[in-house]
Amino acid sequence: MRATLIYGRGDVRVEDVPDPVLVEPGDALVRVTRACICGSDLHRYRGMEPVAEGLRIGHEFMGVVEDTGADVRSVRRGDVVLVPFLWTDNTCDFCRDGLHGSCRNGGRWAVNGLDGGQGEAARVPQADGTLVKLPVGVDDPLIPSVMALSDVLPTGHHAAVTAAVAKGSTVAVIGDGAVGLSAVLSAARLGAERIVLLGRHRDRTDLGRRFGATDVVPERGEEAVAVVRELTGGDGAPHVLECVGTTAAFETALGVVRDGGTISRVGVPQYTEARLDFDVFMRNLTVTGGVAPARRYIPELLGEVLDGTITPGEMFDLSVDLDDVAAGFRAMNDREALKVLVRP
Amino acid sequence: MRATLIYGRGDVRVEDVPDPVLVEPGDALVRVTRACICGSDLHRYRGMEPVAEGLRIGHEFMGVVEDTGADVRSVRRGDVVLVPFLWTDNTCDFCRDGLHGSCRNGGRWAVNGLDGGQGEAARVPQADGTLVKLPVGVDDPLIPSVMALSDVLPTGHHAAVTAAVAKGSTVAVIGDGAVGLSAVLSAARLGAERIVLLGRHRDRTDLGRRFGATDVVPERGEEAVAVVRELTGGDGAPHVLECVGTTAAFETALGVVRDGGTISRVGVPQYTEARLDFDVFMRNLTVTGGVAPARRYIPELLGEVLDGTITPGEMFDLSVDLDDVAAGFRAMNDREALKVLVRP
Repeated sequence: MRATLIYGRGDVRVEDVPDPVLVEPGDALVRVTRACICGSDLHRYRGMEPVAEGLRIGHEFMGVVEDTGADVRSVRRGDVVLVPFLWTDNTCDFCRDGLHGSCRNGGRWAVNGLDGGQGEAARVPQADGTLVKLPVGVDDPLIPSVMALSDVLPTGHHAAVTAAVAKGSTVAVIGDGAVGLSAVLSAARLGAERIVLLGRHRDRTDLGRRFGATDVVPERGEEAVAVVRELTGGDGAPHVLECVGTTAAFETALGVVRDGGTISRVGVPQYTEARLDFDVFMRNLTVTGGVAPARRYIPELLGEVLDGTITPGEMFDLSVDLDDVAAGFRAMNDREALKVLVRP
Repeated sequence: MRATLIYGRGDVRVEDVPDPVLVEPGDALVRVTRACICGSDLHRYRGMEPVAEGLRIGHEFMGVVEDTGADVRSVRRGDVVLVPFLWTDNTCDFCRDGLHGSCRNGGRWAVNGLDGGQGEAARVPQADGTLVKLPVGVDDPLIPSVMALSDVLPTGHHAAVTAAVAKGSTVAVIGDGAVGLSAVLSAARLGAERIVLLGRHRDRTDLGRRFGATDVVPERGEEAVAVVRELTGGDGAPHVLECVGTTAAFETALGVVRDGGTISRVGVPQYTEARLDFDVFMRNLTVTGGVAPARRYIPELLGEVLDGTITPGEMFDLSVDLDDVAAGFRAMNDREALKVLVRP
């Protein structure tokens, strides 16, 4: 089959790879009908040194079940399924606690010999715990919004949930990428009254306003902090959703959070250490968040996608065929596209 | 009057300083009857460069009200009072939220011209919001336990509260200093079932066991992590109370905390940055804690001191006269004393 491999900085290729086969009795084979490019794929696209052998990539996808192992009960051949960005048993104690990133029998895509999502097919381990059967066809108009449930919307939702956003909350969202906009949508869904979106790309922040942002702050750094503080009575926002993952974004979060408030990080950190100094201590700030348990959140969010309450699919502004996936990476990296769908 | 000043590394002196006088109508003058040396006083004792002028020091004290400003309503001349380690109005929105470290009209002792606690007297701003009237005499046998309420016990309590320790919790406490032992006592008070104390000073960990520790781990670093994980079924403790404030202690906390768990920091951080990397992100760890709102916690804890339910005064193992305060610093610094009372 054909699949995407990354060879180094800016070097994405589509090549022939071995067809996946069933290995474990809990596996399913899924023919991929749509995949996405994730902002975190770009970390590797921007930073990786050249390697002799390409690495598989992609972790947001959906498709049609082609075959299942002997133990699989929840899906069968022909089912249309959504694949969350982590594969999990969804039954262990960690999964029951909503810690699917710590699943005792799960893991990530495109590592340890597993397929990536940006290809024609994938072996899905723990199919019963991982796959979510969809009540729509592979070309349904709702598919872009469904695809947002593989990773980006649950990730934004996780930021809002772990930061304890609730009815009436004042929230600051740092970043107008797809995760930031998902955090805006999620905070609005949870009843936040004031949602300040920090971002400087007008088309994106306009979508953020449609998703529920009440204020947009295009300034950056200390200027942004000053504006957010002015908007929040001088004290900052009690709930800060950090949706970027850079040191600069974390510093902005420290600047805009109210004393006693919470910063939830859902942008994959591109740093090792961050400031947790005397000032942070005296202000009783909490830092939380992490990798989202998408599998847990999908059923609830899917219901609202299906009934049209939420339309996260609006974030997709470019579709490319699998053979053109490199163009999709380039467009996202150059910020010409917000979120890219890939059609194998 | 006589008061303690610190001039640099290991250089503590008692000198004549101006007698405090009432300045604001909300002030009280307090004759100090007991003060403590705090572990955080030692940071300065260990690290400070020599200075031309000594700096006042001390923030844990009690005494007798000598005089009050025109606006003071809650205490009067002759009252025996406990002084928390921060002065606060105890009425602003931050104080109402339990964020006394962020009080809009409060601050710290021994800075900006204010007296330190280790002296014969002090001007207390915001007397109505700061002072807690005591129903015991200045030489009551309960005084050591009362003095623990000025800072160290509320600080340990804050660790347990912000880490959400509750009935049945499994807790790891890092550090067998007075804050760590206070955290043990507090976790036990809140109903923790398993309390693993990481510390290697036998006399201190023995007191920790009396305060409620169920296990003591004298190992350090990676060995300590391995032992705590073994004690907790391999996964670590969901609630970790970091009562030291060093990078090593924070790293140990990261090692012993269960995925999805909380590290509450109440040791004043002696570092600027700490590890908040991809691993911390994937594990969904929460870092919280900070400076304790002692004034909020004191009424509840004082009741249990007065009725004998808790005996935090057991931590005091050395008393010195004010003139010998330098010996008290030396004994604490050399770990010959756990916690020192100073008698002006």
